[in-house]
Amino acid sequence: MVVINTEIAQQSLAEAITPEPDFFVRSHFEVPDLDAASHMLTIEGAVANRIELSIDDLRAMPQHTIVATLECAGNNRTAMNPLPPGEPWNGGAVSTAAWGGVRLDSLLQLAGVADSVVEILSEGADSGVAEDGSPLGFIRSMPVDVAATALVALSMNGAPLTAAHGAPVRLIVPRWYGVASVKWLRRLEAIIEPYQGWFQRDRYVIDRVDGSEPVPVQQMAVSSLLSAPLEAVTAGAVTLTGWAWSGQGEVVRVSVAVDDQWVDAAVEQSDDPNSWCRWSLTTKLLAGTHHVRCRAWDSTGRAQPLDVPWNRLGYVSNAARGYSVVVL
Amino acid sequence: MVVINTEIAQQSLAEAITPEPDFFVRSHFEVPDLDAASHMLTIEGAVANRIELSIDDLRAMPQHTIVATLECAGNNRTAMNPLPPGEPWNGGAVSTAAWGGVRLDSLLQLAGVADSVVEILSEGADSGVAEDGSPLGFIRSMPVDVAATALVALSMNGAPLTAAHGAPVRLIVPRWYGVASVKWLRRLEAIIEPYQGWFQRDRYVIDRVDGSEPVPVQQMAVSSLLSAPLEAVTAGAVTLTGWAWSGQGEVVRVSVAVDDQWVDAAVEQSDDPNSWCRWSLTTKLLAGTHHVRCRAWDSTGRAQPLDVPWNRLGYVSNAARGYSVVVL
Repeated sequence: MVVINTEIAQQSLAEAITPEPDFFVRSHFEVPDLDAASHMLTIEGAVANRIELSIDDLRAMPQHTIVATLECAGNNRTAMNPLPPGEPWNGGAVSTAAWGGVRLDSLLQLAGVADSVVEILSEGADSGVAEDGSPLGFIRSMPVDVAATALVALSMNGAPLTAAHGAPVRLIVPRWYGVASVKWLRRLEAIIEPYQGWFQRDRYVIDRVDGSEPVPVQQMAVSSLLSAPLEAVTAGAVTLTGWAWSGQGEVVRVSVAVDDQWVDAAVEQSDDPNSWCRWSLTTKLLAGTHHVRCRAWDSTGRAQPLDVPWNRLGYVSNAARGYSVVVL
Repeated sequence: MVVINTEIAQQSLAEAITPEPDFFVRSHFEVPDLDAASHMLTIEGAVANRIELSIDDLRAMPQHTIVATLECAGNNRTAMNPLPPGEPWNGGAVSTAAWGGVRLDSLLQLAGVADSVVEILSEGADSGVAEDGSPLGFIRSMPVDVAATALVALSMNGAPLTAAHGAPVRLIVPRWYGVASVKWLRRLEAIIEPYQGWFQRDRYVIDRVDGSEPVPVQQMAVSSLLSAPLEAVTAGAVTLTGWAWSGQGEVVRVSVAVDDQWVDAAVEQSDDPNSWCRWSLTTKLLAGTHHVRCRAWDSTGRAQPLDVPWNRLGYVSNAARGYSVVVL
């Protein structure tokens, strides 16, 4: 079984929109081979009307586009010591694309969601085998108010979704960690009790070692990265630049440490509220290797921490990451 | 060119003395193939008598044994973010052996070191090529009072030195980082000015990013490791054990955090002042994955830090390291 997991390609880190071939890929199972002509999306559960929609049906509905940054909840897992199990992501499990499709809210209205519904469950066509050998599908759920913000996406950066990114149809849940944006979407179910499946309660939870209850990962924590320079530069005025994002609010501040001296960077708000925003700082650098860190704050008052408590599954490792900038 | 660098074998981590095949290996260049029958050690420089000694000459002199822990100054480099250049050591570039040979002090007395001498330079038979393409030998120096504590070693754990560990003769400088214990020793020189060569001034220095002058690595900083359990254990009373050492003083305390709760461990002083000492703590563990850290203090009052400032070459990364202990 080939399960594809790749980080964002360095060549595209400078772009606000990540080209499809360079967008990070997170798969739990082998990529399913779905036929767009016959694939159906079912909406069922506590609804007035169970509906089945083909890709053509979805294409015939009003289309919307949102620019959204997706980040894997395990991004930067390698910064944790010891390395927890799971994909050993460095800082590249984050990318941004323009997603096109139908508002999930419209579909839920069409189906007529009952008042008693608390969550919308979403199921991908990918599946594998659980630790005990039983079949395991990829199933997640989200509160109904979050579902109202989601897109049932058919396209990425203007082209039909590729297989790696969920063709022919996937969810995009802006501001939430990528796990919520179920790929190869085949079923939505309106449920009246919170879902307790494997990918909801046993994985994608922050399981600290202080005895506290595990906390599900939901909105992306405030974070940032350096996108340039990642190769050696000439001594003199050097522009450090990168991206900052938060699923919990707007990014309001980015501070950058060059050799342990923190200075605020300029932050350029994105027109798209669900997209990362660019930060930059021009500073004079002498020849040598400089240690650079970046740190963002959001409008909820949350700051990227300098250190993150270890947790058993290595999620939300959003401590300010260090970079070596080589100046010749 | 094959340059061998290996960490201590896990199977021997529980032993106070590391068997030769399991002892960590640090090489800068290819292992030289020296003939013990013809190899000569020269002692020269600011001395009354330049002398040349064969291995048989050295064997004929009074022999001493010291048990000494050696640690590479780059041990735990992977705990630094971003990863500095150099060998990507995890925590296993440390081992302990019983070394036999002649006291360097005796040889220096034989040669008659001048009063003006400040350092003893030591040269290995290994060599390679510098960044600019010129020949580069492995040459280090140490203050004369440190040289007085060193051993010119011919044996390791009772057997003649193996090629990987410096056959037929090497230095052992107890309490100093391993780089001082020059392998494949062919020349000692009494010098009257501090040595400024590559491996003394350009490598094996702590080069922080706060603008401070680079500091040469000398005595080992206080550190510790967990040696057991490294595999899953059964729930109940579990004994956590490991080693602690310091080149700067005696280990006086080890504290162990299980899931962020720090408790002092028992410390068993070694009979050998240059050897690591065992610590242990028996505690009740429930099923699950526990996050364990250990931290030592030495008699100079120094403690292992919880975090170490990043430095450009990634040396002395002695922050308390984390381990996952799996309990079934």
